Amino acid sequence: MIIGILGGGQLARMLALAGYPLGLQFILLDPSADACGIGLGEHLHGAYDDQQLLARLAEKADVVTYEFENVPADVATFLASHTRVYPNPKALAVAQDRLLEKNFLQHLDIPTPKFLPVTDLTELQQAMQEIPYPAILKSRTMGYDGKGQVLLKSARDLPDAWRKMHGVLAIVESFVPFQREVSIIAARSPSGEIAYYPLSENQHAGGILRVSECLANDHLQQRAEDYVTWLMEALDYVGVLALELFDVDGHLLANEFAPRVHNSGHWTIEGAETSQFENHLRAILDLPLGSTAPRGHAAMVNFIGGQPNTGQILAIDHAHLHLYGKVPRKGRKVGHATLRSDDSAQLDSALKKLVAVANSVDDS
Amino acid sequence: MIIGILGGGQLARMLALAGYPLGLQFILLDPSADACGIGLGEHLHGAYDDQQLLARLAEKADVVTYEFENVPADVATFLASHTRVYPNPKALAVAQDRLLEKNFLQHLDIPTPKFLPVTDLTELQQAMQEIPYPAILKSRTMGYDGKGQVLLKSARDLPDAWRKMHGVLAIVESFVPFQREVSIIAARSPSGEIAYYPLSENQHAGGILRVSECLANDHLQQRAEDYVTWLMEALDYVGVLALELFDVDGHLLANEFAPRVHNSGHWTIEGAETSQFENHLRAILDLPLGSTAPRGHAAMVNFIGGQPNTGQILAIDHAHLHLYGKVPRKGRKVGHATLRSDDSAQLDSALKKLVAVANSVDDS
Repeated sequence: MIIGILGGGQLARMLALAGYPLGLQFILLDPSADACGIGLGEHLHGAYDDQQLLARLAEKADVVTYEFENVPADVATFLASHTRVYPNPKALAVAQDRLLEKNFLQHLDIPTPKFLPVTDLTELQQAMQEIPYPAILKSRTMGYDGKGQVLLKSARDLPDAWRKMHGVLAIVESFVPFQREVSIIAARSPSGEIAYYPLSENQHAGGILRVSECLANDHLQQRAEDYVTWLMEALDYVGVLALELFDVDGHLLANEFAPRVHNSGHWTIEGAETSQFENHLRAILDLPLGSTAPRGHAAMVNFIGGQPNTGQILAIDHAHLHLYGKVPRKGRKVGHATLRSDDSAQLDSALKKLVAVANSVDDS
Repeated sequence: MIIGILGGGQLARMLALAGYPLGLQFILLDPSADACGIGLGEHLHGAYDDQQLLARLAEKADVVTYEFENVPADVATFLASHTRVYPNPKALAVAQDRLLEKNFLQHLDIPTPKFLPVTDLTELQQAMQEIPYPAILKSRTMGYDGKGQVLLKSARDLPDAWRKMHGVLAIVESFVPFQREVSIIAARSPSGEIAYYPLSENQHAGGILRVSECLANDHLQQRAEDYVTWLMEALDYVGVLALELFDVDGHLLANEFAPRVHNSGHWTIEGAETSQFENHLRAILDLPLGSTAPRGHAAMVNFIGGQPNTGQILAIDHAHLHLYGKVPRKGRKVGHATLRSDDSAQLDSALKKLVAVANSVDDS
């Protein structure tokens, strides 16, 4: 079987590494000549909306999927009319647009922070009559890793914040005073079978994920499973999906979802019986889903901007290194390491060491 | 870093899959145009003794290693004079020749079955005055998976058995009435650090490995570790080595060793904290070795001759599939599955199911 992937970065790379043992082959469409997943599959080199390349992808691949959701909506529709595409174009369209996404979540009774759409400065000023400061102005599309987001502390910030949006459609939402950021990752098959991973607790800085920890038996697990179930069923979703949530005094508010494997689930490679990457492939191929049970305690630390010293990471007990083969660049995710241990104190101790190494190379 | 591998089969494939997360790249020399590891690295297509290709391999690779030990001895020597090669040519030379190997083991006080060298029928007949029936006549070189071996039940078998050797140098050895076949896999760094995996208990049929089980805390673990330590130190060995042993009434007799990652260690991918593949790469790169601790109970079943149905394997709880992307052919190893569980009864139950599937596709 040949799996087509839109995007050839580290998520495609890790999907391919998980897929080879299942006997799968890969074909990756990516505009970059040196995307880090390229060596693991045939590379279709060109733009995401290149009709000729898309036609070749659809022809060659048994199933097409995404590692990157910000592709033009008509690409998903074109592909879906020529071959099997998971997740489906609707899931992609909703996930791409913060307004559609938030409305969709609200419609499903999944709580979200308060938000309002904004198309110009006047609307922003009006919206901020209803939404308390601090708040965040976010572009509706193309945002990831904190890009396209501006913090609003007072009415004085509004004109400058709106200028930074460069006229794109936006939403403004209240900044919720959360205790924790968590995410739930789940995989759903065409038959409707769903497998849920334990919650991840996520630490961001500068809008970029830094650390995720697996939370086995968290008291909010069931609530998060309910929300992701409603979402996946409403979208008739197939594959892995990640739903990011804020924990505000024990209440979960949905932030956003990603229609793909997700950075906060990278710990599943060693920390769960079956990784999110393998389960995504199993789901889109309509194969039985693998166990999502945690293997002991696990955490993940991103390497951002700079490459860590391999020997230094491998000398940390319980550490598993995952470099992406990317040239380091300011703010760029170049790899991560997972920690896995049967002992939580050992994990905490190793995590301190690993975070120190990650901070030492972090230039963002 | 670029790792060169002599051979591009499933062992090279699994080395590469373990090496990508360490940020490594691969270059594989293999005479076959469709060796199953090829997609994971640059392919040098030609004979193992092609001087031009070897020179290119030595030039491009930071370290060269083997997935296949039966390459001409002068290849190892040529490479070692041009680049780092692990394991070293001596280890390869000893492992290639059953007579050198057995003499080497004896010299280290590692017990072996009784054996004698044989160069013609008269010598064979003389040798069988000293060695009891049943015995096995084995070619000194190029034997694997039971090839080049003939069982001797009585003196009447000798002329025919010798004819089957086609005049090659051979040894004859007593067939030991063992209770178990076990193997120990260990990794050694240039600095002399050694990491030992738990023993594997191995079941062969028709000379081909069928099932391996991880034996945590076996009473013969320490003895096996002693033997493999003596062997690795005497060879100044770097990398992973597998020593196969017979357990005869609680005494271990060495059968043979493989200077490479080994089929009986495939369970380490999911069943140990660090796989044999990753530890081989760590060793030859002089990186800290990873923990060899078992993760619960583990076993491995080979798929031989026929491809199993993916969905059928993945429906077995605790099963992890590893297909090699090879065209099925009689007696050919096309993949394996690992079972891993924290519960030994669950593992046993899953093992029965998995063996049944493997037997249903086995044509050997």
